[in-house]
Amino acid sequence: MRIVLDAMGGDHAPSVIVEGAIEAANEYDDLEVILVGDEGAIQRELSGKKYPASRISVRHAPEVIGMGEPPLQAIRRKKNSSIRKAFDIVKAGEGDAVVTAGHSGVAMALALIVLGTSEGVDRPAIAAIMPTFKKPFVLIDAGANVDTGPANLLQFALMGNSYARHIWNREYPKIALLSIGEEATKGNELTKEAFKLISDSGLDFIGNMEGKDIFLGEADVVVCDGFVGNIVLKTSEGLAEVIIKMLKREIAGVTMGRVAYLLIKGAVRAFKKKTDYAEYGGAPLLGVNGTCIIGHGRSTSKAVKNAIKVASEFARKKVYQIISEEIKKTNPSVKGNTLAAG
Amino acid sequence: MRIVLDAMGGDHAPSVIVEGAIEAANEYDDLEVILVGDEGAIQRELSGKKYPASRISVRHAPEVIGMGEPPLQAIRRKKNSSIRKAFDIVKAGEGDAVVTAGHSGVAMALALIVLGTSEGVDRPAIAAIMPTFKKPFVLIDAGANVDTGPANLLQFALMGNSYARHIWNREYPKIALLSIGEEATKGNELTKEAFKLISDSGLDFIGNMEGKDIFLGEADVVVCDGFVGNIVLKTSEGLAEVIIKMLKREIAGVTMGRVAYLLIKGAVRAFKKKTDYAEYGGAPLLGVNGTCIIGHGRSTSKAVKNAIKVASEFARKKVYQIISEEIKKTNPSVKGNTLAAG
Repeated sequence: MRIVLDAMGGDHAPSVIVEGAIEAANEYDDLEVILVGDEGAIQRELSGKKYPASRISVRHAPEVIGMGEPPLQAIRRKKNSSIRKAFDIVKAGEGDAVVTAGHSGVAMALALIVLGTSEGVDRPAIAAIMPTFKKPFVLIDAGANVDTGPANLLQFALMGNSYARHIWNREYPKIALLSIGEEATKGNELTKEAFKLISDSGLDFIGNMEGKDIFLGEADVVVCDGFVGNIVLKTSEGLAEVIIKMLKREIAGVTMGRVAYLLIKGAVRAFKKKTDYAEYGGAPLLGVNGTCIIGHGRSTSKAVKNAIKVASEFARKKVYQIISEEIKKTNPSVKGNTLAAG
Repeated sequence: MRIVLDAMGGDHAPSVIVEGAIEAANEYDDLEVILVGDEGAIQRELSGKKYPASRISVRHAPEVIGMGEPPLQAIRRKKNSSIRKAFDIVKAGEGDAVVTAGHSGVAMALALIVLGTSEGVDRPAIAAIMPTFKKPFVLIDAGANVDTGPANLLQFALMGNSYARHIWNREYPKIALLSIGEEATKGNELTKEAFKLISDSGLDFIGNMEGKDIFLGEADVVVCDGFVGNIVLKTSEGLAEVIIKMLKREIAGVTMGRVAYLLIKGAVRAFKKKTDYAEYGGAPLLGVNGTCIIGHGRSTSKAVKNAIKVASEFARKKVYQIISEEIKKTNPSVKGNTLAAG
């Protein structure tokens, strides 16, 4: 698999991005990484490092789109940005997947412009992995769309189902709809309509699920609109960090607290590893006509390495084609989208 | 203050509710508690207990509305429910505040029917307290409304502001709008419109805040619609529980884990105390013409006691009148509610 990596995207680009590419190429023999961005800067990061030179190449792109830029305007103005070029390379058939830790709004817009949506899909969605007490689940949409209709939520359910089946090999994924009460009558207009559509979809729909229950690990896929999903994702991330900090502060305050902390340090590390976004690498943008993995802006080199691995798996299994086929089979018309506001 | 307590509401009613009333009456000399519900059952719970008999009285109500009943139907059919009678007592001027751990949808509907909204308020909202690394903040709306418009969010901001000023004595509360990016242009249609309204309100508006930042404790009030707020509240509750469980499991797995856990047990308890909903007692329903505190369905007697204390403070300070005055002063017309869907 040839992974096309936006070397300029993310808070610590290009250094950690190039570092992640090197780690991936060293660890996985079957991978080729194409680094896209400022050639001079990338070569400086590569120089002196040990890596299989035949499997890491550089393609020059002179411009960079920053995190704060308005997506459409930036895309129009910077025709030679690293992220744009990465998508163009995949579109031209010279690469199999795009990985970027840059501006997710820009990545989303370019995926639509350059690759297009998969046949049968109305809007793509970001599928984020959330750890739980048991096994992780897919949260979809984690932030690609802010104003969606019920039929979009049904499509997200179908895409999440394909993810859990084909990447995690869970044969009959359990699909839940994030809401504010378990009964079908609970929720807002959007979720109440989506509840009916998903109920009739043939998926293994386990109904509405409240926020307090998602971390118990009973669902394989939790469906919501991108505004809610992004808030759930980020709230969880922020809360987990604060809880660890608060516990450390409490532990430091008790007798023998320092000793105790030394004893449990390994356990805290193991917990962090299980809940660390870097372990999952990045979130696929599902519903576009190709493979695109969006990494965390704060990605470490390990996160980049893992995002490359995830991209390789999605590309090898051609998940985007499977999604298109499965969606066409179910044919969830977006005509049902009476609430679409954006 | 005369607190009217729905003795039949909540998962463990009437036993823990009556227990909470006794604890409150024993601890606070200036409180009178009126228990409303099945007189026989309540008297059985009271009998043999030590409490100031002059400050706990019972008012009989033969019917109970269960947690699963559809609110409006239940209210129509059960004219003699404990929760209905509790509101009637306050409406008649024979009590100063309602406290219930029962069906929050029913409490909300009855508050509207019996007490009515405060002058100038379009929709009431539930104000929940969330602990953070520094100081707690008010999350408003935590679930009273599922489909709201921008002007509603402005009113929630104003109500949250009154809460932080008059209950917490924070002179210039910092108000944040929960969204999916810090820039004014980030968010969905609802929050983008609300952003403008709150910016022009004269409140100390610190702008959009992402989910990952709410627990840092920089905002005094975080505003969102009730669907999102309820999901944030419950996701946080569920995640905090799971994190503690996961950490315990990891600690049990390391060498000397049991010893370490004994050492840090006090710290975990202190952390739990700081983040326990029971410490906060209950969430006020703001924007109605009277004082109403909604407790957690799983309320313990301590939670009931604290809810009574919160009710007493809100009633004594007549927060509902302050809110009405402050809202009328700012006059946020609900005509701006172009997105209102429900």
